[in-house]
Amino acid sequence: MVALRDLSAEQRRLLDEQTIELPSWAFGNSGTRFKVYGTPGTPRDPYEKIADAAQVHKYTGITPRVSLHIPWDLVDDYEDLQNYAKEQGVSIGTINSNVFQDDAYKFGSLTNSDESVRQKAVDAHRKCIDVMNKTGSSTLKIWLGDGTNYPGQDSMRRRQDTLARSLEEIYADLSDSQYLLLEYKFFEPAFYHTDVPDWGTALVQVQALGERAVVCLDTGHHAPNTNVEFIVMQLLRAGRLGAFDFNSRFYADDDLIVGLADPFQLFRIMHEIVSQGALDKDSGVNFMLDQCHNVEEKIPGEILSALTVQEMSAKALLVDHKLLRQKQAEHDVLGANQVLMDAFYTDVRPMLAQWREERGLNPDPMRAFQESGYLEKIAQERVGGTQASWGA
Amino acid sequence: MVALRDLSAEQRRLLDEQTIELPSWAFGNSGTRFKVYGTPGTPRDPYEKIADAAQVHKYTGITPRVSLHIPWDLVDDYEDLQNYAKEQGVSIGTINSNVFQDDAYKFGSLTNSDESVRQKAVDAHRKCIDVMNKTGSSTLKIWLGDGTNYPGQDSMRRRQDTLARSLEEIYADLSDSQYLLLEYKFFEPAFYHTDVPDWGTALVQVQALGERAVVCLDTGHHAPNTNVEFIVMQLLRAGRLGAFDFNSRFYADDDLIVGLADPFQLFRIMHEIVSQGALDKDSGVNFMLDQCHNVEEKIPGEILSALTVQEMSAKALLVDHKLLRQKQAEHDVLGANQVLMDAFYTDVRPMLAQWREERGLNPDPMRAFQESGYLEKIAQERVGGTQASWGA
Amino acid sequence: MVALRDLSAEQRRLLDEQTIELPSWAFGNSGTRFKVYGTPGTPRDPYEKIADAAQVHKYTGITPRVSLHIPWDLVDDYEDLQNYAKEQGVSIGTINSNVFQDDAYKFGSLTNSDESVRQKAVDAHRKCIDVMNKTGSSTLKIWLGDGTNYPGQDSMRRRQDTLARSLEEIYADLSDSQYLLLEYKFFEPAFYHTDVPDWGTALVQVQALGERAVVCLDTGHHAPNTNVEFIVMQLLRAGRLGAFDFNSRFYADDDLIVGLADPFQLFRIMHEIVSQGALDKDSGVNFMLDQCHNVEEKIPGEILSALTVQEMSAKALLVDHKLLRQKQAEHDVLGANQVLMDAFYTDVRPMLAQWREERGLNPDPMRAFQESGYLEKIAQERVGGTQASWGA
Amino acid sequence: MVALRDLSAEQRRLLDEQTIELPSWAFGNSGTRFKVYGTPGTPRDPYEKIADAAQVHKYTGITPRVSLHIPWDLVDDYEDLQNYAKEQGVSIGTINSNVFQDDAYKFGSLTNSDESVRQKAVDAHRKCIDVMNKTGSSTLKIWLGDGTNYPGQDSMRRRQDTLARSLEEIYADLSDSQYLLLEYKFFEPAFYHTDVPDWGTALVQVQALGERAVVCLDTGHHAPNTNVEFIVMQLLRAGRLGAFDFNSRFYADDDLIVGLADPFQLFRIMHEIVSQGALDKDSGVNFMLDQCHNVEEKIPGEILSALTVQEMSAKALLVDHKLLRQKQAEHDVLGANQVLMDAFYTDVRPMLAQWREERGLNPDPMRAFQESGYLEKIAQERVGGTQASWGA
Repeated sequence: MVALRDLSAEQRRLLDEQTIELPSWAFGNSGTRFKVYGTPGTPRDPYEKIADAAQVHKYTGITPRVSLHIPWDLVDDYEDLQNYAKEQGVSIGTINSNVFQDDAYKFGSLTNSDESVRQKAVDAHRKCIDVMNKTGSSTLKIWLGDGTNYPGQDSMRRRQDTLARSLEEIYADLSDSQYLLLEYKFFEPAFYHTDVPDWGTALVQVQALGERAVVCLDTGHHAPNTNVEFIVMQLLRAGRLGAFDFNSRFYADDDLIVGLADPFQLFRIMHEIVSQGALDKDSGVNFMLDQCHNVEEKIPGEILSALTVQEMSAKALLVDHKLLRQKQAEHDVLGANQVLMDAFYTDVRPMLAQWREERGLNPDPMRAFQESGYLEKIAQERVGGTQASWGA
Repeated sequence: MVALRDLSAEQRRLLDEQTIELPSWAFGNSGTRFKVYGTPGTPRDPYEKIADAAQVHKYTGITPRVSLHIPWDLVDDYEDLQNYAKEQGVSIGTINSNVFQDDAYKFGSLTNSDESVRQKAVDAHRKCIDVMNKTGSSTLKIWLGDGTNYPGQDSMRRRQDTLARSLEEIYADLSDSQYLLLEYKFFEPAFYHTDVPDWGTALVQVQALGERAVVCLDTGHHAPNTNVEFIVMQLLRAGRLGAFDFNSRFYADDDLIVGLADPFQLFRIMHEIVSQGALDKDSGVNFMLDQCHNVEEKIPGEILSALTVQEMSAKALLVDHKLLRQKQAEHDVLGANQVLMDAFYTDVRPMLAQWREERGLNPDPMRAFQESGYLEKIAQERVGGTQASWGA
Repeated sequence: MVALRDLSAEQRRLLDEQTIELPSWAFGNSGTRFKVYGTPGTPRDPYEKIADAAQVHKYTGITPRVSLHIPWDLVDDYEDLQNYAKEQGVSIGTINSNVFQDDAYKFGSLTNSDESVRQKAVDAHRKCIDVMNKTGSSTLKIWLGDGTNYPGQDSMRRRQDTLARSLEEIYADLSDSQYLLLEYKFFEPAFYHTDVPDWGTALVQVQALGERAVVCLDTGHHAPNTNVEFIVMQLLRAGRLGAFDFNSRFYADDDLIVGLADPFQLFRIMHEIVSQGALDKDSGVNFMLDQCHNVEEKIPGEILSALTVQEMSAKALLVDHKLLRQKQAEHDVLGANQVLMDAFYTDVRPMLAQWREERGLNPDPMRAFQESGYLEKIAQERVGGTQASWGA
Repeated sequence: MVALRDLSAEQRRLLDEQTIELPSWAFGNSGTRFKVYGTPGTPRDPYEKIADAAQVHKYTGITPRVSLHIPWDLVDDYEDLQNYAKEQGVSIGTINSNVFQDDAYKFGSLTNSDESVRQKAVDAHRKCIDVMNKTGSSTLKIWLGDGTNYPGQDSMRRRQDTLARSLEEIYADLSDSQYLLLEYKFFEPAFYHTDVPDWGTALVQVQALGERAVVCLDTGHHAPNTNVEFIVMQLLRAGRLGAFDFNSRFYADDDLIVGLADPFQLFRIMHEIVSQGALDKDSGVNFMLDQCHNVEEKIPGEILSALTVQEMSAKALLVDHKLLRQKQAEHDVLGANQVLMDAFYTDVRPMLAQWREERGLNPDPMRAFQESGYLEKIAQERVGGTQASWGA
């Protein structure tokens, strides 16, 4: 077992400074093509999403920012929304564009051969930049559903070139302190080819743009059996790892709660992060969640996610790097591996409970939230209207 | 090149007798969790779906039956629907149950630990049996979305036992000439465990029921890299291959048009079918389509699907089995393989055009349908109402 | 943290009684098709393998049996080998047949269409039964490399039928107290089809034989993304789970040390075992290792493996089943999941160190073995001769 | 059906000029970690391999070059070997380095933290450059087995940096007309991480070297479900597609005969090649085979491979690009797809038989070779000595 006092000053600083950004859409309903289940109390607008997100921060103390998704989170007055967020104890983070739900984008958005559609998709990003300017958000995150379902349906090469042109136009509209974050995904909703399917494609595209273009690694967006921490290492080596979208998967882009499918993988990812100095808040790597709570409660789901990322980060901080390097240099395969396993098997939960108590937080955030009556309260209050979901 | 006259009487008979069943839901809208695109002219009720399905049969001559999905295809008067189908030149085939879209089934249907929900799901199947009795359909097809998203969420063993009990109750309600067809699927909509994920599970469950319980093999429902034709062989060997749900996939259950992702795999499946005598209409194997036309036209999509299954069947019929057995016995690896490849590479399209001409059909069904003006007609006529989709 | 005194009598009994069987071949050299690396001190005969295996038992106290592989482990006098094993503190366990390394088996062994080859393969199993009779081993384990590399190379159906006939002949030669254990594997060394590729095939084959035919589940022998614990549940439900071959994999049949790729998966497997009462030594489930130590030290690799299986078993024993069932019944998704995660995250290493101390063992077996000088001793003593490997 | 006279001058030129390079090691024995089967007549030295390769060219007319693998193909006098090749009608092509079979490379070659090992691996490449200089070969192909088997075993980042340094040293030794060709592979022989696992890594490494560093795409070296033709497009777009290693796979790096697992995929790859103008001999893309003939005859296996690549190339040449672009621009999904399918389903075998006859070759190379008696001749003549295989 390990206690806070066992940490070095540097370990403690990194633990204290780590933050995790929450996605507004995780608080709305989500599901599969087969069914979207609703729950009483689900937010009906961005204000209610932010209120729910603020609950996560209230109990965990490590989720001070909320990402918005445009147009899902369009409001009339962003100053008002920003003020509301501040009152709740959080702020607005990354702005996500959405060019996958308009009828116009059936055959592509930023890659469309139809210039009017392509322009519409570029303009949708300009609206996001407007929101960034109004909210002070520094990052525009772009994930595209673009791709094709059948061989021959379109020219993959033409689309890649068109994408490059579209991204250039968007990048040109960003200010010098704003970043473009490009996310790749192996497949879905396109089933033959996807225009940005892998880290190689994302890297080639952002390198062509400039220094403020970086890559977002969603942990569920890879081919089966892919070594994700290797990609973390590669993007860090290239200086282009901008952010994580954390979640879990057993099969495809399942968007389950982070760390519940393969916690050891999450630990290995955080070990790579810690090893390369990227846990430091100045590293430029943003730790975000991107999840769907199809069958479980949403706010507890996000609390559990934040706690799990923190736990695996704490375990990664416990790795004895000096001993690890020594064992590696000696080609002591099992010895080196056991340095990692020792840290992973160490139970950091008591230490993190202590960490919360020091900050005046309840040591057991899941229970504290459950007992707060918040879920019952919103179930009673949020009656009428349309529950937020991907469709709206 | 090969011509009709090159076929033996037996080959010709098998080609002539093969039929492919169409899914009513393929004519409605479908999509992904990200977006469902509509098209002008999409059917708004089961009658219009049947009218569209009849077009496929009109031009291909090999799709005389339409599967229904209950409750999507609920109507007041099934005699009337059956009569309507007959007028259009088709008949009603398999009845599919749907226990994955009601709020009650969030945590399972036939596997639910809540007895009232489980009973509701059993009753939903009884309603399907009613429809079977009214339409003369001989087959009840069951595909379940049941499963869990997180380790520990439920007891997989308890659910398997509950499933067995539910299936027994449903099976008991079937008449002596009706069949229960159980379909397995690797994953989706459940992302940790699925209650009927593989052919082994489906086989164990149907064997416990009785002789009129058989397995449905959906070609897109397997783990990556799975040898699907091996499973075809195994289910035939066990006497339990009841039907195919044909479609294509590059990644998961993509539900693309059959034969467009890996036509050689479809050929190998049909070769296994032909080799085991299962192309014969008395074999009890039903060749059905189960596809989603997310971005392509639906009726042409189904026409193309039927033609492709017919083409791969024709190629499989061309395999020289005597030579194949000889080369296999000689352990002539390449020689045996080349017997298969020769059949696969033979262009059977001219022969099948000739086959259609002999039957008074247009040799080019895709073009004939496109030129018929039917799509334009339904786009004009079907205005107002709600387009059919998975949601309704 | 948890201590021995926290365990119930039943938990303690199960922990005390669990044993893990070691594979003799893990102590020999192994590798890939690219290269097999040797290490000083590698055993040159079955006696030396047993001596090494006994070291694992000496330090862990839970590996009292060693599986043999025939013909790799052929000796003139099995009574002598058995006596030697007893002196070393271990006994001989399962007998593995090997019909994948003789030139005769190029096109199949038990499935070969050439009757003389098939008979040779059956006879090879009879030799294994001889060894069983001489050593008192109760189990004949059969894993076949049989399969084909190209579509059409052979008839999959004919091979399945031939396999059934061959297994019948072998099964008939077993005494009433001996078991036939059939192992399945997704692919390799065959690359198009494998004759026993999945649990469904293995189950169908053993059910046709009789009650003393059971299935061996090798944790690395599945398609990507397969839920292995579901198969554990299914084979237990069918009463046919005979044994595990434990190991780890990131990609294919990597044969890495168990628990080092995905320890949470191993925990879930052990949870399924514990839940179904199969950890009990009378359950008939044998926990075996089947691993290759290509780059790491072999004896430490086996010690670490045994410890890891014990640790995950201990964690699984800690699951609060009453609470789990309650949360499951309430459809409390996260609550039920957290019952599992709580047990997984509990650090059981101090408790197991205490368990060893109670038995007079060193609490840290890895270190104790390393400091014993055994590796240095065998490196000095075992000079000359041919190191054991898969090739001999 | 299509005939030679139907081809445009440009199509005809591309068909005429295409060549495929053969791997010397395909004529030696190969197998799996379980068993390597030998065949009578297998070459015992590089001269005999070249003689066999020349047979492939003799009958197909499209395989004028043979790749060598060093040290497998080390000879005393390369001028003599080159002359021998010329007499046989072929020449020496790409030189492959081999730093995966020496005991020194157990923990890495170009990535090893041990400077002496790393230097040895660099020097092994210098020997290859010597062979290049002596044979006039323009390309050094590097595929590494480097990687680790366990998390923590080594620093992935340190290894990537070391790799970059090693490649720089090797690149510096190449002349201005020589190319460095870096091949990536998803996994094997390393089972946790591989140092060059994907096209992204290979691209980053070659871009850091200079313009004469390019990427080799082996069609079997990807994660399950990967869209390989997309990567072809990307590497062409980046100007870094140096060569293909063609083969087939159903599971992992199965190294089966090209086109026998998924001929439609091979067609799609060739379509991407043709579309981007890369079939032209001046495009810089070298079409090579890299296969293992574990159970089939080797020379016929290579003949069949060359014919299959030629057939799929011919089909790709038949694609109506103007119509394809039109259908794509109209977003006619099925129309565009059918342009591709039409070409794929066209039987080009008669046209290619005609092509061979025009060149004085036998229209049926497989049969002609079988009837030539060459296999019987080498089986008789090549007695004694050690058959070539990966081990030597």
